[in-house]
Amino acid sequence: MAKNFPSRADDFPQWYNEIVNKADLAENSSVRGCMVIKPYGYSIWEKMQAALDKMFKDTGHVNAYFPLFIPKSFLSKEADHVDGFAKECAVVTHYRLKNSEDGKGVVVDEKAKLEEELIVRPTSETIIWNSYKKWINSYRDLPLLINQWANVVRWEMRTRLFLRTTEFLWQEGHTAHATKEEAIEETKKILEIYTDFAENYLAMPVLQGLKTDTEKFAGAEDTYCIEALMQDGKSLQAGTSHFLAQNFAKAFDVKFADKEGKLEHVWATSWGVTTRMIGALIMTHSDDNGLVLPPKMAPIQVVIIPIYKGDEELKQISDKANEIKAALEGLGISVKYDDRNTHKPGWKFNEYEFKGVPVRIAIGPRDLAKGVVEVARRDTLEKTSYPSDDIGTVIKEMLEHIQQSMFKKALEFREANTTEVATFDEFKKVLNEKGGFIKAHWDGTAETELKIKQETKATIRCIPLEGDSTPGKCMYSGEPSSQMVVFAKAY
Amino acid sequence: MAKNFPSRADDFPQWYNEIVNKADLAENSSVRGCMVIKPYGYSIWEKMQAALDKMFKDTGHVNAYFPLFIPKSFLSKEADHVDGFAKECAVVTHYRLKNSEDGKGVVVDEKAKLEEELIVRPTSETIIWNSYKKWINSYRDLPLLINQWANVVRWEMRTRLFLRTTEFLWQEGHTAHATKEEAIEETKKILEIYTDFAENYLAMPVLQGLKTDTEKFAGAEDTYCIEALMQDGKSLQAGTSHFLAQNFAKAFDVKFADKEGKLEHVWATSWGVTTRMIGALIMTHSDDNGLVLPPKMAPIQVVIIPIYKGDEELKQISDKANEIKAALEGLGISVKYDDRNTHKPGWKFNEYEFKGVPVRIAIGPRDLAKGVVEVARRDTLEKTSYPSDDIGTVIKEMLEHIQQSMFKKALEFREANTTEVATFDEFKKVLNEKGGFIKAHWDGTAETELKIKQETKATIRCIPLEGDSTPGKCMYSGEPSSQMVVFAKAY
Repeated sequence: MAKNFPSRADDFPQWYNEIVNKADLAENSSVRGCMVIKPYGYSIWEKMQAALDKMFKDTGHVNAYFPLFIPKSFLSKEADHVDGFAKECAVVTHYRLKNSEDGKGVVVDEKAKLEEELIVRPTSETIIWNSYKKWINSYRDLPLLINQWANVVRWEMRTRLFLRTTEFLWQEGHTAHATKEEAIEETKKILEIYTDFAENYLAMPVLQGLKTDTEKFAGAEDTYCIEALMQDGKSLQAGTSHFLAQNFAKAFDVKFADKEGKLEHVWATSWGVTTRMIGALIMTHSDDNGLVLPPKMAPIQVVIIPIYKGDEELKQISDKANEIKAALEGLGISVKYDDRNTHKPGWKFNEYEFKGVPVRIAIGPRDLAKGVVEVARRDTLEKTSYPSDDIGTVIKEMLEHIQQSMFKKALEFREANTTEVATFDEFKKVLNEKGGFIKAHWDGTAETELKIKQETKATIRCIPLEGDSTPGKCMYSGEPSSQMVVFAKAY
Repeated sequence: MAKNFPSRADDFPQWYNEIVNKADLAENSSVRGCMVIKPYGYSIWEKMQAALDKMFKDTGHVNAYFPLFIPKSFLSKEADHVDGFAKECAVVTHYRLKNSEDGKGVVVDEKAKLEEELIVRPTSETIIWNSYKKWINSYRDLPLLINQWANVVRWEMRTRLFLRTTEFLWQEGHTAHATKEEAIEETKKILEIYTDFAENYLAMPVLQGLKTDTEKFAGAEDTYCIEALMQDGKSLQAGTSHFLAQNFAKAFDVKFADKEGKLEHVWATSWGVTTRMIGALIMTHSDDNGLVLPPKMAPIQVVIIPIYKGDEELKQISDKANEIKAALEGLGISVKYDDRNTHKPGWKFNEYEFKGVPVRIAIGPRDLAKGVVEVARRDTLEKTSYPSDDIGTVIKEMLEHIQQSMFKKALEFREANTTEVATFDEFKKVLNEKGGFIKAHWDGTAETELKIKQETKATIRCIPLEGDSTPGKCMYSGEPSSQMVVFAKAY
């Protein structure tokens, strides 16, 4: 399996592509930029959905569903939104096909042209706030805490599976509040949920911060984000939570009567994470032997593989394997027993190693005789024999340990790849030779930010919410800086 | 709440609209024919998804995700599919907008015209079989048992919330098999799952049958369906399972090598249920007081309402209410305790009655003194006092009883509204005066089927899989008939 497979050091982008491809996660479709998420990849997305959906519901949010299409005119209603948002959208202009005259296919029926074109949603603020206008009249209708699981389309020129695709899956939360304070509190609450999700489920440490004005969402007053460092030293924006102030409420004229009957515009937030998270998961943990999954995100947490000659041996091993499977499942662990006779044990070892299954149990006739099984950890590749009697407890603890240990390893990597610099020369040197997160002082102007980006391709990933907030001097302009910010090249 | 609310007898279509509207299930959006599924309506869909998804997974199916867009040429590849499938589709022709010259909005960038138009999927056989060609090489790759939860678009001229909308949500299963027998078995297995789901979760009795050639899916060899009878005597197709033979495999050239190495075309099925199920649920059970939900589909199974004057009384009642809530939740029952002081108890009674919450518990100071609570059943509107001590057991049994009793009531309605006729005159008389399912002999020709439809608007809903299969004479033509079929007017 690992043959002809590039290492991370050799060719990181190709290594990534091969993992996505050979681990059966996703593939390109015949539609430019649109991916097919294959069953194994989709089952990781289902785990992400389940974890996030529970967190949203536990904090009072509900799900709903809004239309795929947005009337073109809606996009013009919020000035910053239309200015700042990419115009690369799929446009529906007709609503009917007809048989072609040669009878060999179908053509667009030119008579069926829409009066107003429809845009396939790139994000749903406009169509949702158009509904909220009808739903919100009084303070009694607030807060409105709604999330949607949906597909969205942004016409990307350069696409990469999971990381940047024309169609992708995401959740988008859209909330409405009576006060500014409450909306800001919601924005931060969601940032905490995303952080909890990234760190405790994906085992991926993230930096919490604010985007600069240049990088924030078109239509937001503040964009909070979580940024994760990938193994190639590039940063990946893993989730954003926007404080929208009253911008969309004003654009769509959404007011509520407060307790005194006074009409006020509603305060808003929006926030989302996408299937890009799967790309982040891969690039945080995987190694030169393939995918490595943290147990909480692994569709199969334990695989059991029999090593046998002949039916009689298989039968004896299967009895033990099924007993272990039942015991593990009783502890809430997902287990696959792969007793297919179409593939050799060695092939199976490679297959599950490449697919990142956290724990592999192998059972051969000698193990059976000795009352032991061989347990291999995917993250460290360590193999150990354990008595099969109490294997449930061993595996349960091992899975918890793997989860923590993967987070710790990723955190150590990030710490080792975070550098503080004082000068722009130093900055360029670190960026070229080491990469990673670079902390530096910045004068707060879009002009300096742009120049640094033009000269180095590095962007300000975020203004960190925590950590050192000592003022200093901008590494580029020498002007005063209120605190260090984090630069990196980014996905 | 029920004021100005039409009865079913007065105006069934308007009654339906008002239920959808006033129970906060869904509403029309600004995009013609596309609905907004509101949180309460969406939570019913989530219950449907959870139940079906589990059934699919328990029978070995996995989920995946395929592109929203289909290249126009794909639709022409399967001859029956393109001929028979409605051409009313949303067509994407451009991929970019630009600022208008007056600076006031956005217009379509005519330079960004697609070489080949993309169709928003009306169903995904073509794009999926295009992928399966890459995935299937050998008998080892079969069967492929894949399901997708997705949105689809069919440009409908006359739309009705849930029942017929331009965009709707559904699941679509697409399976590939080595043999004809196995594919037929899969088609029937799914029909059983749909039946189980409709009857044991939605409490909605369904008739299993085969569609006639006229009514079957474009591209299928056989379409199996479940048909449910609504309270207005019209039939609703609640789910379909198609045996596709080798049609799509041939259109997309998907072959596999069998154990002897011989190349064969793959056998296929596809099957789906949609958000239309929510419409079916409403029209099966609801009454002139609003929505009635079977407990297994109710987002809130029990609501507790305090009846109090002053904070001290509320505090005492709340202690008891929260104790009951915890006890019920411990039994797996979903409970809402509505102690809002912004609404009166009477308003709340009406609200939850209209929203179809199966059981309401009211607690007042006198109940508290006597150690009882008042329990009201939504389906029968019966009210009874029960000691609050063992209320958990009482409610649990009551919910089970409601579920069964709603099914029984719907089944009795269907039986009372199923009529066997021998002549076409009798047929027309029953259709006009009584409606419902009408069993009659039919000669098996599309010609007769069409004439009956033109003269009466009734269609053959299905050729039943079970029941009387005695031959007879067609009620219309007098020609021989192999068995009775079921006619009805339909949604």
